[in-house]
Amino acid sequence: MIEIVEFTNMCMIQDKNKVLVIDRKAKDWPGITFPGGHVDPGEPFTDAVIREIREETGLYISSPQLCGIKDWTEDNVRYVVLFYKTDTFDGMLQSSDEGDVWWEEIDNLSNLKLSPDMVDMLRVFTEDNLSEFFYRFDGEKWAYDLK
Amino acid sequence: MIEIVEFTNMCMIQDKNKVLVIDRKAKDWPGITFPGGHVDPGEPFTDAVIREIREETGLYISSPQLCGIKDWTEDNVRYVVLFYKTDTFDGMLQSSDEGDVWWEEIDNLSNLKLSPDMVDMLRVFTEDNLSEFFYRFDGEKWAYDLK
Repeated sequence: MIEIVEFTNMCMIQDKNKVLVIDRKAKDWPGITFPGGHVDPGEPFTDAVIREIREETGLYISSPQLCGIKDWTEDNVRYVVLFYKTDTFDGMLQSSDEGDVWWEEIDNLSNLKLSPDMVDMLRVFTEDNLSEFFYRFDGEKWAYDLK
Repeated sequence: MIEIVEFTNMCMIQDKNKVLVIDRKAKDWPGITFPGGHVDPGEPFTDAVIREIREETGLYISSPQLCGIKDWTEDNVRYVVLFYKTDTFDGMLQSSDEGDVWWEEIDNLSNLKLSPDMVDMLRVFTEDNLSEFFYRFDGEKWAYDLK
């Protein structure tokens, strides 16, 4: 059974007790989150996250590990965000037009102006028994389940 | 950027040094592999793998953990197999029309008549630094990379 899908990705890059965050300038989904971006049609998913992290942060990551999925369906399109994490990277940190990037203490994330659902996305990145952040429209508003 | 996608899943259910395998009867892709099946359009991915494992094995798994992806693009459709693993399950083992299921020693898998690329799929299930099994058509034949 086929469906129409838009794939994107996000990556939690960890260096000891810090993670790399981006203050995304996009007006439709502002706030501090993890870097990432789109997947080209047919592009290997792993290549896509390596490419996007390079473009947004200047860093070259290796062995990104798939750790979860965020998804929702709207107007017959399923939007799929692949979550990756890695602690292996090389290169010089460099912000892009997408937004400023910097290393932040994990324990301090909750004190920042995070993007709307970042606190619960972080749970999917970090808790082994969670693999999915699923948005559903309950008839009046969007709600989500962590699975 | 949207693409047309068919989602399926596979799950490695582990009980100490054994895993649950299925001898799939399908003629187009025969051999011993892990159970799994299709994802309905818009269905939460986690619900889909729990449902398919129930249908094919009689077991009710919980907290399936996403651990990799197999994908390839053919005739403008991307085929995406989501890999899960879990060691948490309940219920009574029961084969279905899809094929016989049984617990097999992990160390004995290589002695079985596995499905064509099962040995390398197993690496993606079990090696933390691998997240993707990517098939590409090199102009003459299909080849794959582990990423």
